Amino acid sequence: MPGKRDGKMHLGVFFKNTGHHLASWRHPDAQPDAGVNLKHYADCARTAERAGLDFIFFADSAAVRDAPMETLSRSSQFTAYFEPTTLLSALAMVTERIGLVSTATTSYNEPYNIARRFASLDHISAGRAGWNVVTSGNVMEAMNFGREEHFEHGERYRRAGEFVEVVKGLWDSWDDDAFLFDRGGGRFFDPEKVHVLDHRGDWFSVRGPLNVPRAPQGHPVIFQAGHSDTGRELAAATAEGVFTGHLTPERSREHYNDLKQRMAHYGRPPDSMKILPGCTVICAASAAEAREKDAYLASLIHPIVGRGYIASMTGLDLSDCSVDDPLPDRESGLSRSAMASAIIALGKSENLTIRKLYERLAGSHGKLTLIGSVAEVADAMQAWFDGGACDGFILQPSHMPGNLDDIVNLLVPELQNRGLIRAGYEGATLRDHLGLARPASRYARGAA
Amino acid sequence: MPGKRDGKMHLGVFFKNTGHHLASWRHPDAQPDAGVNLKHYADCARTAERAGLDFIFFADSAAVRDAPMETLSRSSQFTAYFEPTTLLSALAMVTERIGLVSTATTSYNEPYNIARRFASLDHISAGRAGWNVVTSGNVMEAMNFGREEHFEHGERYRRAGEFVEVVKGLWDSWDDDAFLFDRGGGRFFDPEKVHVLDHRGDWFSVRGPLNVPRAPQGHPVIFQAGHSDTGRELAAATAEGVFTGHLTPERSREHYNDLKQRMAHYGRPPDSMKILPGCTVICAASAAEAREKDAYLASLIHPIVGRGYIASMTGLDLSDCSVDDPLPDRESGLSRSAMASAIIALGKSENLTIRKLYERLAGSHGKLTLIGSVAEVADAMQAWFDGGACDGFILQPSHMPGNLDDIVNLLVPELQNRGLIRAGYEGATLRDHLGLARPASRYARGAA
Repeated sequence: MPGKRDGKMHLGVFFKNTGHHLASWRHPDAQPDAGVNLKHYADCARTAERAGLDFIFFADSAAVRDAPMETLSRSSQFTAYFEPTTLLSALAMVTERIGLVSTATTSYNEPYNIARRFASLDHISAGRAGWNVVTSGNVMEAMNFGREEHFEHGERYRRAGEFVEVVKGLWDSWDDDAFLFDRGGGRFFDPEKVHVLDHRGDWFSVRGPLNVPRAPQGHPVIFQAGHSDTGRELAAATAEGVFTGHLTPERSREHYNDLKQRMAHYGRPPDSMKILPGCTVICAASAAEAREKDAYLASLIHPIVGRGYIASMTGLDLSDCSVDDPLPDRESGLSRSAMASAIIALGKSENLTIRKLYERLAGSHGKLTLIGSVAEVADAMQAWFDGGACDGFILQPSHMPGNLDDIVNLLVPELQNRGLIRAGYEGATLRDHLGLARPASRYARGAA
Repeated sequence: MPGKRDGKMHLGVFFKNTGHHLASWRHPDAQPDAGVNLKHYADCARTAERAGLDFIFFADSAAVRDAPMETLSRSSQFTAYFEPTTLLSALAMVTERIGLVSTATTSYNEPYNIARRFASLDHISAGRAGWNVVTSGNVMEAMNFGREEHFEHGERYRRAGEFVEVVKGLWDSWDDDAFLFDRGGGRFFDPEKVHVLDHRGDWFSVRGPLNVPRAPQGHPVIFQAGHSDTGRELAAATAEGVFTGHLTPERSREHYNDLKQRMAHYGRPPDSMKILPGCTVICAASAAEAREKDAYLASLIHPIVGRGYIASMTGLDLSDCSVDDPLPDRESGLSRSAMASAIIALGKSENLTIRKLYERLAGSHGKLTLIGSVAEVADAMQAWFDGGACDGFILQPSHMPGNLDDIVNLLVPELQNRGLIRAGYEGATLRDHLGLARPASRYARGAA
């Protein structure tokens, strides 16, 4: 194992209503109606804050998930739930320090509206907002916005790049000291300190200025999650937090080094981006107990849901297969994705039934899952971190609040005892927690 | 005076950061940095709730106001402030009963996104959300959304009408009892109880379903404020609260009767719409004291701001005029609006200087202002209400918190003593407060 690394590991936690495990909502320690249960989210946010985690994170989609109804109707995920910028604004009022990060798509929004909402959330939360920039490759979203198909991959990333530039420009509309509140002199703001962006690009024409004062963090923190070449380039140019998904430290280290190297081209120091793989942790006092917890979760996966999951990941039509059969040897419909190839290979090499396959994979949606004693899990996380495979993790609770409680009560104290994570908050803003500088305005004297 | 009317008067309060008066922010009892001061809004919302008011109301614009910089930089209004759906989500957490209404434009949003945010706010607030539907006739907004000019009036109302229909359709995506949470049977929702809208219209193609469960109120309450013929028709078809602006009970009664008559065409009972004129109240124990308060506010109007206000209302270039001169007799630039004609006529008939004109008009932006003893103001409100000119009022505090405190401490007890308004909340939702029925889903058995 490499030597101990300077600095602390960053931990965020990804809230997905009942949890990330496909069967989370059936677990007795999950809140089945989490989707629009404000008390559930408030309690979970306070739990995460008690542990001093850097941020809570929300995914988002502007559509109900595309899946056959027999599968969908047995799933809690991506069906119906709070819109995240409104939810995070509410959660800002019941927390004091934890960062509040949400996904919003650049494909079916306008930059002026997104700039406003995240700047507003940053003001509401006194500097705790983050925006996870995504593009939509989902036809169900396209069809809710007047399109028959989603934008082509390169096209939507070009749009996203311009979108982020416009949003950042709008966030600089007002200098930090623009507002005078000079009652006697009758001067509300200094006219020299408001800026018209006047952006005219391929996708957007946006005059500005933004009608929100500059945010407490200057800019809310920009997150990104794309893995493709264009996705990586967008991250290198703009992202301050990157949400990755790799199963091995080697693959994660390759991604890590690649991103940090690409940043040089944009004049960005490597430390101005934190790379955080998604990770589900099933831990207990003993490894045996952790495996029992995992097996119990796996037993809750309804066969129709599990088979549907493998079908959707591979592209195969499995409707005529028993879950106790191995994967059929078919070419028809087979996806060319890396995930599909990996699943086919795993099934063949270990001669797994469809049931065994979904039990193995469906818990974490193909993301890293660490199952073991608290010490074993902490060892693994430490090895990833010290080995330069990441700057920390985005924890994906299998079910909430149960698994979140395990993380906070078992894992966090162990990581704190090892000096791997902070013992509590040292700053006030999300940028403070992540060790990110507050960006100067593009209009500041001396700015490029 | 007509006889006493059955039922109670409805009161909302329109929060506009430092207040509605043009010079509000200069008043010692105003909060000059209100725009992004969360404590200010939380305190004001709790004050309004203590008084049992039906709702708080926010205007919105997706642009900084279009005005010459010398005027704009001396004004607090429509410069930079919280985005209202995020602000209301936060305020939902520090209040329990009061309704939460915000404007959002149909011109520069997409129906799926608006349907989500207001449904989400309704869940967050346990049934207190309202959406004020507006169209944007402001070129500064157009220029933030890739357009050189705003949509033409008829065009933007046709878009608005279709927009509202799509939003209401999306709000019915899930039946109220769609979610089963049947852990044992593995059934999360009932597939028969989710509906695909599949809207294809002139402006929008939206498949659905919405990814938010049906809102506690069924639909958040729909407000509208248009005064034109097309605006009135849209209100008659869809609005449950109408925000009007008239200076006399006669004009207001004409509008009131017209709207209630138009509703018949849409099969709507008259009582399913509440018509609420905007109204600024300057009251005190004595009429003389109230007039002093008003004169003090008027004295705070910076001459440049006051002259700019009259210029923008009339279309006249007044940059070469002293505020102690009468309005110049010019045709060049003169607006053909009803407001411009009224201002010109007022100036001539009373031989008013520009200063006297703006002192008279700029406090309430041309809306009704009632200045007098508490009893006199209550008399006037009662006369409007009993005379069938309105179903209540949207109060527009001249400055906040000062004038809001006067409303709550002086006016509200007087109206309660007269039995004109409720003594406190009797229900839990905004629909309860306004006496509006919860709409059945369009998919409910027996629905049309």
